[in-house]
Amino acid sequence: MATPVVAVVDAKTPGNVGTIARAMKNFGFADLLLVDPPELDPDGEAYGYAGQAREDVLPAAREIDFETLVSSYHTVGFTSVTNEDDSKHVRFPYATPAELATELAGVETETALVFGRERIGLTNDELASVDQICAIPASEEYPSLNLGQAATVALYELRDLAMDDSQLPERARTRATEREIEGFYDHFETLLDDIEYPAEKHDKTMRLVRRLLGRAHPTGREIATLRGVLRKARRRFE
Amino acid sequence: MATPVVAVVDAKTPGNVGTIARAMKNFGFADLLLVDPPELDPDGEAYGYAGQAREDVLPAAREIDFETLVSSYHTVGFTSVTNEDDSKHVRFPYATPAELATELAGVETETALVFGRERIGLTNDELASVDQICAIPASEEYPSLNLGQAATVALYELRDLAMDDSQLPERARTRATEREIEGFYDHFETLLDDIEYPAEKHDKTMRLVRRLLGRAHPTGREIATLRGVLRKARRRFE
Repeated sequence: MATPVVAVVDAKTPGNVGTIARAMKNFGFADLLLVDPPELDPDGEAYGYAGQAREDVLPAAREIDFETLVSSYHTVGFTSVTNEDDSKHVRFPYATPAELATELAGVETETALVFGRERIGLTNDELASVDQICAIPASEEYPSLNLGQAATVALYELRDLAMDDSQLPERARTRATEREIEGFYDHFETLLDDIEYPAEKHDKTMRLVRRLLGRAHPTGREIATLRGVLRKARRRFE
Repeated sequence: MATPVVAVVDAKTPGNVGTIARAMKNFGFADLLLVDPPELDPDGEAYGYAGQAREDVLPAAREIDFETLVSSYHTVGFTSVTNEDDSKHVRFPYATPAELATELAGVETETALVFGRERIGLTNDELASVDQICAIPASEEYPSLNLGQAATVALYELRDLAMDDSQLPERARTRATEREIEGFYDHFETLLDDIEYPAEKHDKTMRLVRRLLGRAHPTGREIATLRGVLRKARRRFE
């Protein structure tokens, strides 16, 4: 699928546009479309809040009118207030961002993620025009997210549509091998013998240690260090 | 499990504290701890950015020193920069927020989610003291999230530890029943007869319609409306 574009409708505060641009760059998105934007002064809040997105996402943002947006893209409108059921279709059915991510990953489409102005979000007329509704699950007591924060959460959830790899290193290969871990258990058992641990508690304690390490998935380094400690301890006993 | 507390270390800008307080209230968190906080003027940016959290989360925030924090809670430090592997343990192994959510849901613990100051985040010394590392997967090119945005994403992912229900209404019950949907297919087949649709295409077309509705999971209302359209169409043919 193509990476979705992000559209912000009638934002009032340049700071929110900057926050959204930053989240876009953080999660691999590049194309920002603005409907009726506020003025984005290069020395103002939009650029101040954009982090490194001030170099590319923000200066490359394009103005567009709402009708062109709706007719050019598969539009997904974000709102925190949905209809209760299917007696009205303006805000129902909705998808959550996680569901949308799964769904869009399986479709070849030019999608626009559409966020509305501060306070009231997208209007009923705007929501009625878009193709799909997305709502971020939040507290019943206070479900209304700030514009920049809503976009940040949405772009985070949809990041796999926009980026191949994250900054995070692979961890799987660093887990200790079974051989190393079993070696540790052997060492540990020998220690129990050395310290004349009660025979009737032996099996139970070994099981406990196995369960503890079993769910911690120790790294090679961790096991090597623990084995080193046990070796040192044994040498003291000899 | 108990709802985690949120700790912010040495924040420089009151606005970020307000943003975090708002995200906390949005996702059901209540307890905010502050290490070396900036001044939070009730007429300033912290309260301005906090939305409705200006009424409870923010005024109830408590100051704490870092050592007390670490000794009182199971501390999870957030960073965007991890170590590459287990040759160093200051920032490794890490959990992602989604993994942390699953893990903490199964443990009875008093957890503090710890976020560091703007720009540099938590220092190596601070990260070395915490119990666990969490990192938000982001773009390799620009993985460094703004403090308020990082906390928003983390609290969103961990929301199930803090809230029972979201604002979003149940959707499952609104799906049309199989009987209603099968009724629609019957109607549709009758329409094919009415319009003298080529017999050799009949089965293929019915299958296509079944697949289309099958993956759309239509609501009762949608099916009723479509059946109404078909009924109207048939009446025109009679």
